[in-house]
Amino acid sequence: MFEHRCQLRVRYGETDRMGYLYYGNYAEHFEVGRVEALRALGFPYRRIEDEGVLLPVRELHVRYHAPAHYDDLLTVITRVPAMPEVRIVFHYEVRDERDVLLTEASTTLVFVDRRTGRPRRAPHDLLAAMAPHFSVS
Amino acid sequence: MFEHRCQLRVRYGETDRMGYLYYGNYAEHFEVGRVEALRALGFPYRRIEDEGVLLPVRELHVRYHAPAHYDDLLTVITRVPAMPEVRIVFHYEVRDERDVLLTEASTTLVFVDRRTGRPRRAPHDLLAAMAPHFSVS
Amino acid sequence: MFEHRCQLRVRYGETDRMGYLYYGNYAEHFEVGRVEALRALGFPYRRIEDEGVLLPVRELHVRYHAPAHYDDLLTVITRVPAMPEVRIVFHYEVRDERDVLLTEASTTLVFVDRRTGRPRRAPHDLLAAMAPHFSVS
Amino acid sequence: MFEHRCQLRVRYGETDRMGYLYYGNYAEHFEVGRVEALRALGFPYRRIEDEGVLLPVRELHVRYHAPAHYDDLLTVITRVPAMPEVRIVFHYEVRDERDVLLTEASTTLVFVDRRTGRPRRAPHDLLAAMAPHFSVS
Repeated sequence: MFEHRCQLRVRYGETDRMGYLYYGNYAEHFEVGRVEALRALGFPYRRIEDEGVLLPVRELHVRYHAPAHYDDLLTVITRVPAMPEVRIVFHYEVRDERDVLLTEASTTLVFVDRRTGRPRRAPHDLLAAMAPHFSVS
Repeated sequence: MFEHRCQLRVRYGETDRMGYLYYGNYAEHFEVGRVEALRALGFPYRRIEDEGVLLPVRELHVRYHAPAHYDDLLTVITRVPAMPEVRIVFHYEVRDERDVLLTEASTTLVFVDRRTGRPRRAPHDLLAAMAPHFSVS
Repeated sequence: MFEHRCQLRVRYGETDRMGYLYYGNYAEHFEVGRVEALRALGFPYRRIEDEGVLLPVRELHVRYHAPAHYDDLLTVITRVPAMPEVRIVFHYEVRDERDVLLTEASTTLVFVDRRTGRPRRAPHDLLAAMAPHFSVS
Repeated sequence: MFEHRCQLRVRYGETDRMGYLYYGNYAEHFEVGRVEALRALGFPYRRIEDEGVLLPVRELHVRYHAPAHYDDLLTVITRVPAMPEVRIVFHYEVRDERDVLLTEASTTLVFVDRRTGRPRRAPHDLLAAMAPHFSVS
Protein backbone atom coordinates (compact mmCIF):
# COMPACT_ATOMS: atom_id res chain seq x y z
CA MET A 1 0.00 0.00 0.00
CA PHE A 2 1.16 3.49 -0.81
CA GLU A 3 0.18 6.33 1.52
CA HIS A 4 0.64 10.08 1.34
CA ARG A 5 -0.43 13.00 3.54
CA CYS A 6 -0.95 16.63 2.71
CA GLN A 7 -2.57 19.61 4.35
CA LEU A 8 -5.21 21.98 3.06
CA ARG A 9 -6.88 24.94 4.69
CA VAL A 10 -10.62 25.47 4.13
CA ARG A 11 -11.12 28.66 2.12
CA TYR A 12 -13.98 31.07 2.70
CA GLY A 13 -15.15 30.53 -0.86
CA GLU A 14 -15.36 26.79 -0.18
CA THR A 15 -17.77 27.17 2.72
CA ASP A 16 -21.54 27.34 2.43
CA ARG A 17 -24.42 28.98 4.27
CA MET A 18 -24.10 26.45 7.13
CA GLY A 19 -20.50 27.60 7.62
CA TYR A 20 -19.27 24.16 6.52
CA LEU A 21 -16.98 23.09 3.73
CA TYR A 22 -19.59 22.49 0.98
CA TYR A 23 -20.06 18.76 0.34
CA GLY A 24 -19.14 19.11 -3.33
CA ASN A 25 -15.86 20.89 -2.64
CA TYR A 26 -14.25 17.85 -1.03
CA ALA A 27 -13.80 16.44 -4.53
CA GLU A 28 -11.18 19.12 -5.20
CA HIS A 29 -9.44 18.22 -1.94
CA PHE A 30 -9.35 14.56 -2.94
CA GLU A 31 -7.90 15.69 -6.29
CA VAL A 32 -5.14 17.54 -4.44
CA GLY A 33 -4.59 14.43 -2.31
CA ARG A 34 -4.06 12.08 -5.25
CA VAL A 35 -2.09 14.60 -7.32
CA GLU A 36 0.32 15.21 -4.46
CA ALA A 37 0.55 11.45 -3.85
CA LEU A 38 1.52 10.93 -7.50
CA ARG A 39 3.99 13.83 -7.31
CA ALA A 40 5.63 12.22 -4.26
CA LEU A 41 6.13 9.12 -6.42
CA GLY A 42 7.80 11.24 -9.09
CA PHE A 43 4.75 11.54 -11.36
CA PRO A 44 3.31 15.02 -11.56
CA TYR A 45 -0.15 14.48 -13.03
CA ARG A 46 0.53 17.25 -15.54
CA ARG A 47 3.37 15.19 -16.97
CA ILE A 48 1.21 12.06 -17.20
CA GLU A 49 -1.32 14.08 -19.20
CA ASP A 50 1.33 15.73 -21.34
CA GLU A 51 2.56 12.24 -22.24
CA GLY A 52 -0.84 11.43 -23.67
CA VAL A 53 -2.53 9.61 -20.79
CA LEU A 54 -5.74 10.96 -19.29
CA LEU A 55 -7.10 9.80 -15.94
CA PRO A 56 -10.82 10.56 -15.79
CA VAL A 57 -12.73 9.68 -12.64
CA ARG A 58 -15.21 6.81 -13.02
CA GLU A 59 -16.51 6.53 -9.45
CA LEU A 60 -16.66 8.70 -6.36
CA HIS A 61 -17.91 7.56 -2.98
CA VAL A 62 -17.93 9.84 0.06
CA ARG A 63 -19.10 9.42 3.65
CA TYR A 64 -19.36 12.65 5.60
CA HIS A 65 -18.99 11.97 9.33
CA ALA A 66 -18.56 15.49 10.66
CA PRO A 67 -18.36 18.92 9.04
CA ALA A 68 -15.16 20.81 8.28
CA HIS A 69 -15.38 24.50 9.10
CA TYR A 70 -13.93 27.65 7.64
CA ASP A 71 -10.16 28.00 8.15
CA ASP A 72 -9.78 24.45 9.48
CA LEU A 73 -6.39 23.00 8.60
CA LEU A 74 -7.28 19.61 7.16
CA THR A 75 -5.03 16.61 6.61
CA VAL A 76 -5.87 14.58 3.54
CA ILE A 77 -4.51 11.04 3.80
CA THR A 78 -4.41 9.38 0.38
CA ARG A 79 -3.85 5.66 -0.03
CA VAL A 80 -3.45 3.45 -3.08
CA PRO A 81 -4.53 0.05 -1.78
CA ALA A 82 -3.55 -2.05 -4.81
CA MET A 83 -1.25 -1.92 -7.82
CA PRO A 84 -3.07 -0.15 -10.66
CA GLU A 85 -3.84 -1.93 -13.92
CA VAL A 86 -6.34 -0.22 -16.20
CA ARG A 87 -7.88 1.35 -13.13
CA ILE A 88 -6.36 3.02 -10.12
CA VAL A 89 -8.25 3.29 -6.85
CA PHE A 90 -7.50 5.96 -4.25
CA HIS A 91 -8.83 5.96 -0.69
CA TYR A 92 -9.00 9.19 1.29
CA GLU A 93 -9.41 10.22 4.86
CA VAL A 94 -9.88 13.87 5.80
CA ARG A 95 -8.94 14.65 9.40
CA ASP A 96 -9.03 17.90 11.36
CA GLU A 97 -6.31 19.34 13.61
CA ARG A 98 -7.38 17.13 16.51
CA ASP A 99 -7.14 14.09 14.24
CA VAL A 100 -10.94 13.65 14.16
CA LEU A 101 -12.03 11.74 11.06
CA LEU A 102 -14.35 14.06 9.13
CA THR A 103 -14.71 12.30 5.80
CA GLU A 104 -13.86 9.01 4.13
CA ALA A 105 -13.91 8.59 0.39
CA SER A 106 -12.67 6.63 -2.57
CA THR A 107 -12.31 7.35 -6.26
CA THR A 108 -11.74 5.01 -9.18
CA LEU A 109 -9.92 6.45 -12.16
CA VAL A 110 -9.21 4.85 -15.54
CA PHE A 111 -6.07 5.27 -17.63
CA VAL A 112 -7.17 6.46 -21.07
CA ASP A 113 -5.10 6.99 -24.21
CA ARG A 114 -5.59 10.61 -25.21
CA ARG A 115 -5.45 9.93 -28.95
CA THR A 116 -7.72 6.91 -29.14
CA GLY A 117 -9.90 7.76 -26.14
CA ARG A 118 -9.65 4.11 -25.11
CA PRO A 119 -8.64 2.56 -21.80
CA ARG A 120 -5.06 1.41 -21.51
CA ARG A 121 -2.78 -0.02 -18.84
CA ALA A 122 -0.99 2.25 -16.38
CA PRO A 123 2.34 3.63 -17.70
CA HIS A 124 5.26 1.28 -17.02
CA ASP A 125 7.35 3.82 -15.16
CA LEU A 126 4.45 4.62 -12.83
CA LEU A 127 4.08 0.91 -12.09
CA ALA A 128 7.83 0.65 -11.51
CA ALA A 129 7.70 3.55 -9.04
CA MET A 130 4.78 2.03 -7.19
CA ALA A 131 5.97 -1.56 -7.10
CA PRO A 132 8.28 -1.21 -4.06
CA HIS A 133 5.30 -0.10 -1.97
CA PHE A 134 3.46 -3.31 -2.75
CA SER A 135 6.37 -5.79 -2.63
CA VAL A 136 5.81 -8.98 -0.72
CA SER A 137 8.58 -9.84 1.74
CA MET B 1 -41.69 7.25 -5.85
CA PHE B 2 -41.37 10.94 -6.48
CA GLU B 3 -39.57 12.14 -9.61
CA HIS B 4 -38.58 15.58 -10.88
CA ARG B 5 -36.67 16.83 -13.92
CA CYS B 6 -34.76 20.04 -14.44
CA GLN B 7 -32.26 21.35 -16.96
CA LEU B 8 -28.84 22.85 -16.44
CA ARG B 9 -26.31 24.13 -18.92
CA VAL B 10 -22.62 23.40 -18.33
CA ARG B 11 -20.81 26.67 -17.61
CA TYR B 12 -17.30 27.42 -18.83
CA GLY B 13 -16.17 27.84 -15.24
CA GLU B 14 -17.41 24.34 -14.46
CA THR B 15 -15.26 22.68 -17.11
CA ASP B 16 -11.70 21.52 -16.62
CA ARG B 17 -8.57 21.17 -18.72
CA MET B 18 -10.03 18.08 -20.45
CA GLY B 19 -12.97 20.23 -21.59
CA TYR B 20 -15.30 18.15 -19.40
CA LEU B 21 -17.61 19.15 -16.58
CA TYR B 22 -15.22 18.67 -13.63
CA TYR B 23 -16.13 15.57 -11.62
CA GLY B 24 -16.57 17.56 -8.42
CA ASN B 25 -18.98 20.05 -9.97
CA TYR B 26 -21.74 17.47 -10.46
CA ALA B 27 -22.42 17.74 -6.72
CA GLU B 28 -23.78 21.24 -7.29
CA HIS B 29 -25.98 19.94 -10.11
CA PHE B 30 -27.35 17.22 -7.83
CA GLU B 31 -28.03 19.96 -5.27
CA VAL B 32 -30.02 21.89 -7.87
CA GLY B 33 -31.85 18.66 -8.74
CA ARG B 34 -33.00 17.95 -5.19
CA VAL B 35 -33.71 21.60 -4.33
CA GLU B 36 -35.95 21.96 -7.40
CA ALA B 37 -37.61 18.62 -6.57
CA LEU B 38 -38.42 19.89 -3.08
CA ARG B 39 -39.63 23.23 -4.50
CA ALA B 40 -41.97 21.35 -6.86
CA LEU B 41 -43.44 19.70 -3.74
CA GLY B 42 -43.97 23.11 -2.19
CA PHE B 43 -40.88 23.07 0.04
CA PRO B 44 -38.22 25.56 -0.97
CA TYR B 45 -35.13 24.36 0.86
CA ARG B 46 -34.52 27.89 2.10
CA ARG B 47 -37.81 27.72 3.98
CA ILE B 48 -36.96 24.35 5.52
CA GLU B 49 -33.72 25.85 6.80
CA ASP B 50 -35.38 29.05 7.97
CA GLU B 51 -37.76 26.88 10.01
CA GLY B 52 -34.82 25.44 11.90
CA VAL B 53 -34.16 22.21 10.03
CA LEU B 54 -30.79 21.58 8.38
CA LEU B 55 -30.22 18.84 5.81
CA PRO B 56 -26.51 18.05 5.66
CA VAL B 57 -25.32 15.40 3.20
CA ARG B 58 -24.07 12.19 4.80
CA GLU B 59 -23.24 10.14 1.72
CA LEU B 60 -22.53 10.79 -1.93
CA HIS B 61 -22.06 8.10 -4.56
CA VAL B 62 -21.40 8.89 -8.22
CA ARG B 63 -20.76 6.76 -11.30
CA TYR B 64 -19.45 8.69 -14.29
CA HIS B 65 -20.35 6.86 -17.51
CA ALA B 66 -19.52 9.53 -20.08
CA PRO B 67 -18.29 13.11 -19.86
CA ALA B 68 -20.48 16.20 -20.09
CA HIS B 69 -18.96 18.96 -22.20
CA TYR B 70 -19.00 22.71 -22.15
CA ASP B 71 -22.40 24.22 -23.02
CA ASP B 72 -24.20 20.86 -22.96
CA LEU B 73 -27.79 21.24 -21.84
CA LEU B 74 -28.13 18.54 -19.20
CA THR B 75 -31.28 17.05 -17.75
CA VAL B 76 -31.05 16.13 -14.08
CA ILE B 77 -33.66 13.54 -13.12
CA THR B 78 -34.11 13.42 -9.35
CA ARG B 79 -35.98 10.63 -7.63
CA VAL B 80 -36.95 10.04 -4.00
CA PRO B 81 -37.32 6.26 -3.86
CA ALA B 82 -38.80 5.97 -0.35
CA MET B 83 -40.64 8.07 2.20
CA PRO B 84 -38.09 9.94 4.32
CA GLU B 85 -37.77 9.34 8.05
CA VAL B 86 -34.66 10.71 9.73
CA ARG B 87 -32.87 10.33 6.41
CA ILE B 88 -33.89 11.19 2.89
CA VAL B 89 -32.29 9.51 -0.11
CA PHE B 90 -32.17 11.10 -3.56
CA HIS B 91 -31.22 9.28 -6.75
CA TYR B 92 -30.01 11.22 -9.78
CA GLU B 93 -29.50 10.63 -13.45
CA VAL B 94 -27.78 13.19 -15.63
CA ARG B 95 -28.62 12.88 -19.33
CA ASP B 96 -27.47 14.89 -22.34
CA GLU B 97 -29.60 16.29 -25.16
CA ARG B 98 -29.66 12.94 -26.95
CA ASP B 99 -30.85 11.28 -23.72
CA VAL B 100 -27.50 9.51 -23.19
CA LEU B 101 -26.98 8.63 -19.53
CA LEU B 102 -23.81 10.46 -18.42
CA THR B 103 -23.89 10.07 -14.67
CA GLU B 104 -25.80 8.20 -11.97
CA ALA B 105 -25.64 9.21 -8.36
CA SER B 106 -27.27 9.09 -4.98
CA THR B 107 -27.06 11.21 -1.87
CA THR B 108 -28.25 10.53 1.66
CA LEU B 109 -29.15 13.55 3.77
CA VAL B 110 -30.16 13.70 7.43
CA PHE B 111 -32.74 16.00 8.98
CA VAL B 112 -31.02 17.89 11.81
CA ASP B 113 -32.50 20.27 14.37
CA ARG B 114 -30.61 23.53 13.99
CA ARG B 115 -30.72 24.41 17.69
CA THR B 116 -29.72 21.07 19.15
CA GLY B 117 -27.63 19.87 16.23
CA ARG B 118 -29.30 16.46 16.60
CA PRO B 119 -31.05 14.28 14.04
CA ARG B 120 -34.82 14.54 13.95
CA ARG B 121 -37.66 13.19 11.82
CA ALA B 122 -38.66 14.88 8.57
CA PRO B 123 -41.11 17.80 9.03
CA HIS B 124 -44.75 16.63 9.05
CA ASP B 125 -45.87 18.87 6.23
CA LEU B 126 -43.07 17.61 3.98
CA LEU B 127 -44.17 14.04 4.71
CA ALA B 128 -47.76 15.01 3.99
CA ALA B 129 -46.76 16.50 0.63
CA MET B 130 -44.76 13.42 -0.29
CA ALA B 131 -47.23 10.78 0.87
CA PRO B 132 -49.45 10.84 -2.25
CA HIS B 133 -46.44 9.90 -4.36
CA PHE B 134 -45.89 6.76 -2.32
CA SER B 135 -49.49 5.71 -1.75
CA VAL B 136 -50.32 2.04 -2.26
CA SER B 137 -53.36 1.37 -4.39
CA MET C 1 -26.15 49.08 -27.68
CA PHE C 2 -27.06 45.45 -27.37
CA GLU C 3 -28.81 44.25 -24.20
CA HIS C 4 -29.80 40.81 -22.95
CA ARG C 5 -31.41 39.51 -19.75
CA CYS C 6 -31.26 36.11 -18.15
CA GLN C 7 -32.12 34.65 -14.77
CA LEU C 8 -30.00 32.60 -12.41
CA ARG C 9 -30.83 31.15 -9.01
CA VAL C 10 -28.16 31.27 -6.29
CA ARG C 11 -27.06 27.71 -5.48
CA TYR C 12 -26.22 26.53 -1.97
CA GLY C 13 -22.72 25.66 -3.14
CA GLU C 14 -22.24 29.23 -4.32
CA THR C 15 -22.96 30.76 -0.91
CA ASP C 16 -20.40 31.32 1.80
CA ARG C 17 -20.32 31.36 5.58
CA MET C 18 -22.07 34.76 5.64
CA GLY C 19 -24.96 33.20 3.72
CA TYR C 20 -24.16 35.41 0.73
CA LEU C 21 -23.29 34.56 -2.84
CA TYR C 22 -19.48 34.42 -2.56
CA TYR C 23 -17.88 37.45 -4.20
CA GLY C 24 -15.81 35.30 -6.54
CA ASN C 25 -18.81 33.35 -7.83
CA TYR C 26 -20.34 36.34 -9.60
CA ALA C 27 -17.73 35.88 -12.32
CA GLU C 28 -19.48 32.68 -13.37
CA HIS C 29 -22.81 34.53 -13.45
CA PHE C 30 -21.30 37.23 -15.67
CA GLU C 31 -19.99 34.43 -17.90
CA VAL C 32 -23.53 33.05 -18.20
CA GLY C 33 -24.77 36.57 -18.94
CA ARG C 34 -22.41 37.17 -21.84
CA VAL C 35 -22.67 33.62 -23.21
CA GLU C 36 -26.46 33.85 -23.31
CA ALA C 37 -26.21 37.32 -24.86
CA LEU C 38 -24.01 35.91 -27.63
CA ARG C 39 -26.35 32.93 -28.06
CA ALA C 40 -29.28 35.33 -28.47
CA LEU C 41 -27.31 36.93 -31.32
CA GLY C 42 -26.87 33.51 -32.92
CA PHE C 43 -23.32 32.91 -31.66
CA PRO C 44 -23.05 30.13 -29.13
CA TYR C 45 -19.65 30.71 -27.55
CA ARG C 46 -18.82 27.04 -28.05
CA ARG C 47 -19.10 27.55 -31.80
CA ILE C 48 -16.86 30.62 -31.71
CA GLU C 49 -14.23 28.55 -29.92
CA ASP C 50 -14.69 25.55 -32.21
CA GLU C 51 -14.03 27.88 -35.14
CA GLY C 52 -10.62 28.71 -33.70
CA VAL C 53 -11.27 31.95 -31.83
CA LEU C 54 -10.66 32.18 -28.10
CA LEU C 55 -12.04 35.00 -25.94
CA PRO C 56 -9.96 35.22 -22.77
CA VAL C 57 -10.88 37.83 -20.18
CA ARG C 58 -8.39 40.69 -19.83
CA GLU C 59 -10.14 42.83 -17.21
CA LEU C 60 -12.82 42.37 -14.59
CA HIS C 61 -14.29 45.17 -12.48
CA VAL C 62 -17.03 44.57 -9.93
CA ARG C 63 -18.85 46.82 -7.47
CA TYR C 64 -20.86 44.96 -4.84
CA HIS C 65 -23.70 47.15 -3.58
CA ALA C 66 -25.75 44.60 -1.65
CA PRO C 67 -25.44 40.86 -1.05
CA ALA C 68 -27.32 38.18 -2.97
CA HIS C 69 -28.60 35.40 -0.72
CA TYR C 70 -29.15 31.70 -1.09
CA ASP C 71 -31.99 30.78 -3.48
CA ASP C 72 -32.43 34.37 -4.71
CA LEU C 73 -33.59 34.46 -8.31
CA LEU C 74 -31.21 36.96 -9.90
CA THR C 75 -31.56 38.80 -13.18
CA VAL C 76 -28.30 39.36 -15.01
CA ILE C 77 -28.56 42.24 -17.49
CA THR C 78 -25.73 42.13 -20.01
CA ARG C 79 -24.94 45.03 -22.30
CA VAL C 80 -22.44 45.47 -25.11
CA PRO C 81 -21.96 49.24 -25.20
CA ALA C 82 -19.88 49.47 -28.37
CA MET C 83 -19.14 47.48 -31.51
CA PRO C 84 -16.27 45.08 -30.78
CA GLU C 85 -12.97 45.33 -32.63
CA VAL C 86 -10.07 43.38 -31.17
CA ARG C 87 -11.71 43.75 -27.76
CA ILE C 88 -15.28 43.32 -26.66
CA VAL C 89 -16.58 44.97 -23.50
CA PHE C 90 -19.57 43.66 -21.55
CA HIS C 91 -21.37 45.56 -18.80
CA TYR C 92 -23.46 43.70 -16.24
CA GLU C 93 -26.08 44.51 -13.67
CA VAL C 94 -27.29 41.89 -11.22
CA ARG C 95 -30.72 42.63 -9.77
CA ASP C 96 -32.84 40.71 -7.27
CA GLU C 97 -36.54 39.88 -7.50
CA ARG C 98 -37.53 43.34 -6.27
CA ASP C 99 -35.31 44.90 -8.95
CA VAL C 100 -32.75 46.08 -6.38
CA LEU C 101 -29.33 46.57 -7.97
CA LEU C 102 -26.93 44.20 -6.17
CA THR C 103 -23.86 44.31 -8.35
CA GLU C 104 -22.44 46.21 -11.30
CA ALA C 105 -19.55 44.91 -13.32
CA SER C 106 -17.69 45.00 -16.58
CA THR C 107 -15.35 42.63 -18.37
CA THR C 108 -13.03 43.21 -21.29
CA LEU C 109 -12.28 40.21 -23.48
CA VAL C 110 -9.88 39.91 -26.40
CA PHE C 111 -10.40 37.92 -29.59
CA VAL C 112 -7.42 35.58 -29.96
CA ASP C 113 -6.53 33.27 -32.80
CA ARG C 114 -6.27 29.80 -31.31
CA ARG C 115 -3.46 28.66 -33.59
CA THR C 116 -1.20 31.66 -33.35
CA GLY C 117 -2.23 32.78 -29.88
CA ARG C 118 -2.34 36.35 -31.18
CA PRO C 119 -5.08 38.97 -30.97
CA ARG C 120 -7.30 39.31 -34.01
CA ARG C 121 -10.42 41.23 -35.00
CA ALA C 122 -13.89 39.97 -34.09
CA PRO C 123 -15.33 37.45 -36.59
CA HIS C 124 -17.15 39.14 -39.47
CA ASP C 125 -20.43 37.33 -38.95
CA LEU C 126 -20.50 38.33 -35.28
CA LEU C 127 -19.97 41.95 -36.31
CA ALA C 128 -22.73 41.60 -38.90
CA ALA C 129 -25.12 40.25 -36.27
CA MET C 130 -24.29 43.05 -33.88
CA ALA C 131 -24.32 45.93 -36.34
CA PRO C 132 -28.11 46.48 -36.38
CA HIS C 133 -28.02 47.10 -32.62
CA PHE C 134 -25.56 49.93 -33.10
CA SER C 135 -26.94 51.51 -36.26
CA VAL C 136 -27.20 55.26 -36.33
CA SER C 137 -30.53 56.64 -37.50
CA MET D 1 2.96 49.44 3.54
CA PHE D 2 2.43 45.89 4.66
CA GLU D 3 3.36 43.05 2.31
CA HIS D 4 2.89 39.29 2.50
CA ARG D 5 3.65 36.41 0.13
CA CYS D 6 2.12 32.96 -0.10
CA GLN D 7 2.10 30.16 -2.61
CA LEU D 8 -0.79 28.32 -4.20
CA ARG D 9 -0.83 25.54 -6.75
CA VAL D 10 -3.46 25.62 -9.51
CA ARG D 11 -5.86 22.72 -9.02
CA TYR D 12 -7.35 20.73 -11.89
CA GLY D 13 -10.82 21.72 -10.75
CA GLU D 14 -9.82 25.37 -11.01
CA THR D 15 -8.86 25.14 -14.68
CA ASP D 16 -11.22 25.57 -17.60
CA ARG D 17 -11.57 24.25 -21.13
CA MET D 18 -8.67 26.45 -22.30
CA GLY D 19 -6.45 24.74 -19.73
CA TYR D 20 -6.13 28.03 -17.85
CA LEU D 21 -6.98 28.96 -14.29
CA TYR D 22 -10.58 30.17 -14.79
CA TYR D 23 -10.80 33.95 -14.51
CA GLY D 24 -13.34 33.77 -11.69
CA ASN D 25 -11.20 31.46 -9.55
CA TYR D 26 -8.54 34.09 -8.92
CA ALA D 27 -10.92 35.69 -6.44
CA GLU D 28 -10.42 32.71 -4.13
CA HIS D 29 -6.64 33.05 -4.49
CA PHE D 30 -6.86 36.74 -3.57
CA GLU D 31 -8.96 35.67 -0.56
CA VAL D 32 -6.19 33.29 0.50
CA GLY D 33 -3.67 36.08 -0.02
CA ARG D 34 -5.41 38.57 2.27
CA VAL D 35 -6.39 35.96 4.87
CA GLU D 36 -2.80 34.76 5.14
CA ALA D 37 -1.61 38.39 5.28
CA LEU D 38 -3.95 39.04 8.21
CA ARG D 39 -2.87 35.79 9.88
CA ALA D 40 0.77 36.88 9.59
CA LEU D 41 -0.23 40.04 11.48
CA GLY D 42 -1.80 37.90 14.21
CA PHE D 43 -5.40 38.26 13.01
CA PRO D 44 -6.89 35.06 11.67
CA TYR D 45 -9.94 36.23 9.73
CA ARG D 46 -12.03 33.60 11.51
CA ARG D 47 -11.31 35.33 14.81
CA ILE D 48 -12.23 38.74 13.42
CA GLU D 49 -15.57 37.30 12.35
CA ASP D 50 -16.08 35.43 15.61
CA GLU D 51 -15.60 38.76 17.40
CA GLY D 52 -18.55 40.18 15.50
CA VAL D 53 -16.86 42.00 12.63
CA LEU D 54 -17.64 41.04 9.04
CA LEU D 55 -15.49 42.12 6.10
CA PRO D 56 -17.56 41.93 2.91
CA VAL D 57 -15.92 42.83 -0.38
CA ARG D 58 -17.17 46.06 -1.96
CA GLU D 59 -14.96 46.25 -5.05
CA LEU D 60 -12.85 43.88 -7.10
CA HIS D 61 -10.61 44.93 -9.98
CA VAL D 62 -8.48 42.44 -11.91
CA ARG D 63 -6.14 42.75 -14.89
CA TYR D 64 -5.17 39.45 -16.47
CA HIS D 65 -1.83 39.79 -18.24
CA ALA D 66 -1.04 36.13 -18.94
CA PRO D 67 -2.77 32.85 -18.12
CA ALA D 68 -1.90 30.56 -15.22
CA HIS D 69 -1.91 26.89 -16.16
CA TYR D 70 -2.76 23.68 -14.40
CA ASP D 71 -0.30 22.74 -11.64
CA ASP D 72 1.54 26.07 -11.80
CA LEU D 73 2.92 27.05 -8.42
CA LEU D 74 1.77 30.65 -8.06
CA THR D 75 3.03 33.30 -5.68
CA VAL D 76 0.37 35.68 -4.42
CA ILE D 77 1.89 38.94 -3.19
CA THR D 78 -0.60 40.83 -1.02
CA ARG D 79 -0.06 44.45 -0.04
CA VAL D 80 -2.00 46.81 2.22
CA PRO D 81 -1.02 50.22 0.85
CA ALA D 82 -2.63 52.38 3.55
CA MET D 83 -3.82 52.13 7.15
CA PRO D 84 -7.42 50.90 7.15
CA GLU D 85 -10.23 53.03 8.52
CA VAL D 86 -13.76 51.91 7.67
CA ARG D 87 -12.35 50.35 4.50
CA ILE D 88 -9.30 48.23 3.90
CA VAL D 89 -7.73 47.98 0.46
CA PHE D 90 -5.60 45.04 -0.63
CA HIS D 91 -3.44 44.95 -3.75
CA TYR D 92 -2.38 41.64 -5.26
CA GLU D 93 0.14 40.38 -7.74
CA VAL D 94 0.09 36.81 -8.95
CA ARG D 95 3.42 35.60 -10.31
CA ASP D 96 4.47 32.26 -11.75
CA GLU D 97 7.60 30.25 -10.94
CA ARG D 98 9.73 32.36 -13.30
CA ASP D 99 8.46 35.50 -11.57
CA VAL D 100 6.35 36.52 -14.58
CA LEU D 101 3.50 38.81 -13.54
CA LEU D 102 0.26 37.03 -14.52
CA THR D 103 -2.38 39.08 -12.76
CA GLU D 104 -2.76 42.33 -10.85
CA ALA D 105 -5.78 43.04 -8.71
CA SER D 106 -7.22 45.03 -5.86
CA THR D 107 -10.12 44.55 -3.51
CA THR D 108 -11.83 47.01 -1.20
CA LEU D 109 -13.48 45.55 1.90
CA VAL D 110 -15.59 47.28 4.53
CA PHE D 111 -15.61 46.57 8.26
CA VAL D 112 -19.21 45.85 9.25
CA ASP D 113 -20.69 45.27 12.69
CA ARG D 114 -22.34 41.85 12.59
CA ARG D 115 -25.21 42.80 14.92
CA THR D 116 -26.17 46.13 13.39
CA GLY D 117 -25.07 45.39 9.83
CA ARG D 118 -23.53 48.87 9.73
CA PRO D 119 -20.03 49.98 8.76
CA ARG D 120 -17.62 50.54 11.63
CA ARG D 121 -13.95 51.38 12.07
CA ALA D 122 -11.30 48.67 11.93
CA PRO D 123 -10.71 46.91 15.29
CA HIS D 124 -8.18 48.73 17.47
CA ASP D 125 -5.87 45.78 17.92
CA LEU D 126 -5.70 45.23 14.16
CA LEU D 127 -4.75 48.89 13.72
CA ALA D 128 -2.15 48.52 16.46
CA ALA D 129 -0.63 45.49 14.71
CA MET D 130 -0.53 47.30 11.39
CA ALA D 131 0.75 50.65 12.58
CA PRO D 132 4.47 49.70 12.71
CA HIS D 133 4.33 48.89 8.98
CA PHE D 134 3.17 52.40 8.18
CA SER D 135 5.27 54.40 10.62
CA VAL D 136 6.94 57.51 9.29
CA SER D 137 10.63 57.81 10.04
